[in-house]
Amino acid sequence: MIKSLLSETSRTMKSSMIRELVASTRDIPGLISFAGGFPSPKTFPKDTLSKLYADVVATEGAGVLQYGASEGDNFLKKELLAWEGYDLPLDQMLITVGATNAIYYMTKALVDPGDVVICEAPSFLGSLVAFEALGADLQGIPLDLEGLDINKLQAKVDELTKAGKKVKMIYTIPDFHNPAGLTMSYARRKALIEYALAMDIPILEDNPYSRLRFSGEALPTLFRIAHDEYHNTEIVTEIVSFSKILGPGMRLAFVKGSEVLIERMCSWQQKVNVTPDCVSQRVAAHFLKEGYMNPHLSMVCDFYRPYLERMLAAMSQYLPPYIQYSKPEGGIFTWLWLPEDMNADLLFEQAKKHKVTFIPGSKFYPSGQEKHNCLRLNFSFSSLEQIDTGIAALGSLMHEFYA
Amino acid sequence: MIKSLLSETSRTMKSSMIRELVASTRDIPGLISFAGGFPSPKTFPKDTLSKLYADVVATEGAGVLQYGASEGDNFLKKELLAWEGYDLPLDQMLITVGATNAIYYMTKALVDPGDVVICEAPSFLGSLVAFEALGADLQGIPLDLEGLDINKLQAKVDELTKAGKKVKMIYTIPDFHNPAGLTMSYARRKALIEYALAMDIPILEDNPYSRLRFSGEALPTLFRIAHDEYHNTEIVTEIVSFSKILGPGMRLAFVKGSEVLIERMCSWQQKVNVTPDCVSQRVAAHFLKEGYMNPHLSMVCDFYRPYLERMLAAMSQYLPPYIQYSKPEGGIFTWLWLPEDMNADLLFEQAKKHKVTFIPGSKFYPSGQEKHNCLRLNFSFSSLEQIDTGIAALGSLMHEFYA
Repeated sequence: MIKSLLSETSRTMKSSMIRELVASTRDIPGLISFAGGFPSPKTFPKDTLSKLYADVVATEGAGVLQYGASEGDNFLKKELLAWEGYDLPLDQMLITVGATNAIYYMTKALVDPGDVVICEAPSFLGSLVAFEALGADLQGIPLDLEGLDINKLQAKVDELTKAGKKVKMIYTIPDFHNPAGLTMSYARRKALIEYALAMDIPILEDNPYSRLRFSGEALPTLFRIAHDEYHNTEIVTEIVSFSKILGPGMRLAFVKGSEVLIERMCSWQQKVNVTPDCVSQRVAAHFLKEGYMNPHLSMVCDFYRPYLERMLAAMSQYLPPYIQYSKPEGGIFTWLWLPEDMNADLLFEQAKKHKVTFIPGSKFYPSGQEKHNCLRLNFSFSSLEQIDTGIAALGSLMHEFYA
Repeated sequence: MIKSLLSETSRTMKSSMIRELVASTRDIPGLISFAGGFPSPKTFPKDTLSKLYADVVATEGAGVLQYGASEGDNFLKKELLAWEGYDLPLDQMLITVGATNAIYYMTKALVDPGDVVICEAPSFLGSLVAFEALGADLQGIPLDLEGLDINKLQAKVDELTKAGKKVKMIYTIPDFHNPAGLTMSYARRKALIEYALAMDIPILEDNPYSRLRFSGEALPTLFRIAHDEYHNTEIVTEIVSFSKILGPGMRLAFVKGSEVLIERMCSWQQKVNVTPDCVSQRVAAHFLKEGYMNPHLSMVCDFYRPYLERMLAAMSQYLPPYIQYSKPEGGIFTWLWLPEDMNADLLFEQAKKHKVTFIPGSKFYPSGQEKHNCLRLNFSFSSLEQIDTGIAALGSLMHEFYA
């Protein structure tokens, strides 16, 4: 009975197909998985958090167990601004139930069904399914090694505008891109901001990974560049997730951006969640206030560095020379470009038989814009030995492909 | 710049006007407020929760700080089913970020813009603004002392169906109704379920208060009646909030209903929040498993009982005889029906001058269907003395109205 009553969108919307892929490998004994995007539980500061949860509930329980403000805990907001070094009014900031939640609100605030959202191709699948479920016309722009290709962006926006479409936002992951493992160059960041300012197109900067840099020089975020160099805090809306820097189970992210947009996003938060978990918000605030965050991040980077190094070494050793791959200095993913005639969806099925899994690249493109000769590897979840064995097995399969 | 880019809905949607009302009285020194819907922080079991948070994070941190399932923590689901005494499959249950979140997902799952949602008139404003923001055509059905008027419901559904409208759900708060303080009679519950079954219209049962019964006999929920007497677990979707029985800051609720609907609601959860806070979910699970819930609820009922009694006594003593009001046996609200010519919006302004506040009844109706000769009083937040003083002041104002 209920089936015939479902709303149009709910009948047709896609799920994250990664779930089904991962489910299809779940029962393989001894499986080596490069598929997930989960942080290592070994990086969770559980003793510190255990103590902070206990203290916060015992001493501030009357407040944190009560309803909180829809815009988020002001105590947490102030700690975040101090940590990041911004002097912004609190109403340019919103706390949300993780980054996906913020992306959802931003889309609700800006996008009517049929409006265009520009994304990178490939991009984070979780965002793409949310954009599509809200009726966005999702247009992917290719990446080169410096990030989003601005010439192709301009050409696409011109074409869409001529066709009468409204381009409502540009969604980008500049640091340690998921899935491509790339970091946008400084020049490209400036070019993107200047283009967005000239065209009045808001940028949504998704930043889950910038603090996971294991080597090399950090680049300023788009929000930072817009703030410092263009004195603009409206063109870029930056979302920072706590999922990779504290623990995804706490479901927290924070957003900085235009007051108008934050106010509308907050109005959606009232209707969708009322407020994020107030206990976890206050715990995160104390984690910052008591100075735990920066040493914790050093520990996390020290923890992941050998895994990335082993992954890069194994790829160099075992993959055929015609396989290209990104060489990130942080984050949790790398990306392989395969020869045109090598299909990663088929490779996925073969690899499964050899007890190795990854996500085929085709899953990271807007519907109808898929590429099949690419794949994503995660290096934050397997052991060093598994990385070696798994990449060796993948390399053999690729060698066999042309044998 | 951003303003001109906002989506159609975001430009026009209402905020909960209660916020502005409450804000307008915030700076009045010595204000007696019957306006809010907050539980008393004295009822929060903060010592137990402090201990549970500490233990859960210390011993299960690797799990609960990690990403959790979008459908919710199975451990919590099992504890909830055991507590409530149901033998349902886990995929007929969903954990959400509070009840509003579940109401939002249910609406997303069923309602296309223009589809009808039937609600009680008056009803909970937080739900009404969410329904309206999602484009529902919201139609209020009057309440009598037994609850939703089924004859008027039938007449309205007939009229709407003839006009080509799709009626997608009936939203009801059967126990200790917010704002009306009424409890739907057993006969009315059965009649509503039978009507919904005959017409294939899903019922959304919002149940934040049924466990806050301070006297009298508990009635079975609509979900329970459908389950026990009609062997049906699809026609009613029941949402139970943790906000009044544990603490709203933990942002938890659970939903029981049709597998098809739960699956679609879960698909929205993936796109909106990924999952509720996993730490708080597991803490709630242990709160149930270790047997804290039922003694806690006895304590909460013992705590609130004198406040309700004082409120009823004060109304009987101070209000003019032509004022009618609901006499609940639980919950946190009572409701006043004023004479036709007495406008509670005007009374609100006068009461403010006498340092007493409440929510005018007009705020609890769908747009364009407002009634003005009614108001809501909360009794869970003021002291016993404030209840006496505040109701005496309101009574005087009403006496003066006809003087």
